[in-house]
Order: sequence, then C-alpha cells, then structure tokens
Amino acid sequence: MTAPDKSFESKLLESWQANAELWTSAIREGKIQSRETTTHAAIQQAILAFSPNKALDLGCGEGWLIRSLANQGIEWVGVEGVPALAEKARESGKAEILTLNYAALVAEPHRCGGGFDLVVANFSLLEAELLPLFLGLRKIVTPGARLLIQTLHPCTLEGPYLSGPRSESFAAMGSGTWQTMPWYFRTLGDWLDLLRAADLKLLSLCEPLLPETLRPASLILEVAF
Amino acid sequence: MTAPDKSFESKLLESWQANAELWTSAIREGKIQSRETTTHAAIQQAILAFSPNKALDLGCGEGWLIRSLANQGIEWVGVEGVPALAEKARESGKAEILTLNYAALVAEPHRCGGGFDLVVANFSLLEAELLPLFLGLRKIVTPGARLLIQTLHPCTLEGPYLSGPRSESFAAMGSGTWQTMPWYFRTLGDWLDLLRAADLKLLSLCEPLLPETLRPASLILEVAF
Repeated sequence: MTAPDKSFESKLLESWQANAELWTSAIREGKIQSRETTTHAAIQQAILAFSPNKALDLGCGEGWLIRSLANQGIEWVGVEGVPALAEKARESGKAEILTLNYAALVAEPHRCGGGFDLVVANFSLLEAELLPLFLGLRKIVTPGARLLIQTLHPCTLEGPYLSGPRSESFAAMGSGTWQTMPWYFRTLGDWLDLLRAADLKLLSLCEPLLPETLRPASLILEVAF
Repeated sequence: MTAPDKSFESKLLESWQANAELWTSAIREGKIQSRETTTHAAIQQAILAFSPNKALDLGCGEGWLIRSLANQGIEWVGVEGVPALAEKARESGKAEILTLNYAALVAEPHRCGGGFDLVVANFSLLEAELLPLFLGLRKIVTPGARLLIQTLHPCTLEGPYLSGPRSESFAAMGSGTWQTMPWYFRTLGDWLDLLRAADLKLLSLCEPLLPETLRPASLILEVAF
C-alpha cells in the first residue's frame, strides 16, 4: 500500500471541478454504457429494497440519483464537494444540495442535518483516507441505518492488485479534454479492513453483472452502522 | 445460480478417490506452483496468527497442512471423506485422521471430537451445499473459535460470474490420467450470503498474491463462529 502525497485529495476535487461540464453531459446523455445497462439500476434497487425515509447522497455529483428517485417518498439531501457539480445538482430542485467536501463534513457532520436512515455513496469514495468520514457519518444517522457503497469492482482492474493511488484519464469517454483524476484503489480485503476499523458491519456484497459479458460491472457493499 | 443434480457430491468424492495417487504426488513433489509460492504459506500464516490450541483440518486431503504445522504446539484432528487420501494422511502419524465425509460429519459432528478453537478448510469446500456443514461445525467448536477458508479467488476464474457447478479437468497438471472433478463455484457475494445464513461473522478477507503477476492466488475468509 503506497501512501499518496498530501495534495491527493485537493487534486481529486480539482479534477472534478475541471471535468464538471463534460461529466454532466456524459451522465445526462447516457454515454457510460455500464452505468446505463447495469450500475444505475443496481444502486437504485439496493436503495429501494431498504425503503429509506431520509437518505444522504454522499458525493452526489450532478444529482442523477436523487432525480431518478425523487418520487419514491424519500427525503433526500445531497452533499457534493465540487461546486460546479453541486450547482448542476441544485438545478433540478428535487432536494437540498449542500456544497461540502468530505473534510468539511468530517469537521462538522451536522451541517448536512441528521436523522438519516440511509447514506449512499455511488462511485464517490475515491479518497485515500475514508475512516474519518465514516466515523463522522455515525453522528448523523439513526440506529439501524445503512450505508450503501457502489464502487469499481476491485477485481476488474488490471495491474498489480495492491491498494494505492491510481490515475484515471477518462480515455474511454472519447471526445472532450478531460483532466486526469487521481483516485485511490482499494482491494476487497482493504475495503473490509476499512469498514471494520470504522466499526461498520458488512451485511452483503452485490456484484451486478454486465449483460454482454456476465462479468461484474461494480461492487455494492451493503453496510450497517 | 444453477442447482447441481443429486449425484454431484458423490461424483466429487469419487473423482478424488480416483485421483488420490496423482494428487498426493502433485502435492508432495511441489508440482502446483501457486501453492508452493503463495497459498501454502498464506494459510499457514493465517493459522499461526491465531495461535490455536486444537484445530480441525476439514478435508485434510493427503495431510500436508497437518504435517507442516505438526511441531507448532497445535493439537490437530484431520477429517477426510476420501478413503485413499485419509490413508495417505494417516501415514505420517502426526495427528488423528478420521475418514468421514461431510454428510457423516453433519449427521454426527461429535465423531471428530470437540473443543476446537480453529477449523481450517484449505481448498476443501467444493460442495454445492455447505450450510448444514457450517451449522454442524458450531456444535464442536469453543466460544470465540475461528474458521479459516482458503478457496479459489472467485474473480480469477474466467467465464460467467455466476455461482453454479463447474468442472475441473486438471489439464494444467500435465502428465497422468486425471478424472474430471465436479465442483461448485461461488461468487464473493454468495460466499458472504452463505456465511450470513450460517450466522458466521466475516472478520477479514486475505488475498495472497502470486509473486510473478501480483494478482490474487486465492482468497482466505477469516470467519468467527
């Protein structure tokens, strides 16, 4: 496991600020095939199966998830650390969207309210340090609350299977000038160790499959606080 | 998930009986590279890290694991459902080796004694139905006991990522006339569901890496009863 340098988190946020327009178009125009065929529906189903009352969309991006489940009787709050994406999410008017990065959320969890029985992080846990965030979330959830984390399935990435910083060039996105994003790769074993360190209980692993290959498109960790 | 036919478990045992001589040679002559470089040491380390007093080697095969840790102050009992392999394991005289298949163990768990603070299943859970076995093991372990399961890492196998019966031809073993073995493939998610159904708690996942590729050689599930 390689420790990233100190500017890792700020470079991560900067890349999303730079890519906000391109990313918003990619999501809203359905350009990412695996999301369209598999991972959008997988996280929606995982959320609806739990029938939450009040849910926090952690790293909500341009807000597609809240929009898509706006009429399901769930009180949503979105939190997004990238101002340009938070602004996009706010346009829909479907929920309160707060511009807060994870460092701010760790410092003052109650800035996003409380009483959540569900926290969802949909491909939004790219940071190297997540333990303080998980500990902070404890302060704003109800007893029995769930955490749903959808992430890249660690086994589907090539290269050495070792936790550490990686780079995403968005080359697969085709057109547009994307800024490279640093992100932190975690093995399955390290995901579990992280949850355990935060005293979170893994209930199940969901591995939604790509219809064309029947290989995992992502990993959804269903976790109890 | 496809349900195997009723003769699956008996064909599995038959294949090991037929392959017992070839398998014993393969293990004792160190012919399986991933075991030599990685998985033998990984399970040994996981066992020693727990410092057990009395351990059950579940599906002990020709007995290499017990032999290799015979001088570590652990009281070992080996259980093996394939008579020809149990006989090989008994040759070393390092532990009590019982010829019992899992069905017999489920029916009468105390036939292998009791008071185990560790149960190890090293590449030996190939059956379709494991829940009755896990429930049976509960009756012969001490409070706080651990279960260590080393298995093929589900992500490293090609083909549709779906739990179900598969066949192993042992083609990679080179010479010798091997009998094809039926075995049951489980996804990660299904391993976790199985543990949860048996009220077993997954503590950690160890993913030992092949030194030449730095990709997982196996998966070790560290579980608490």
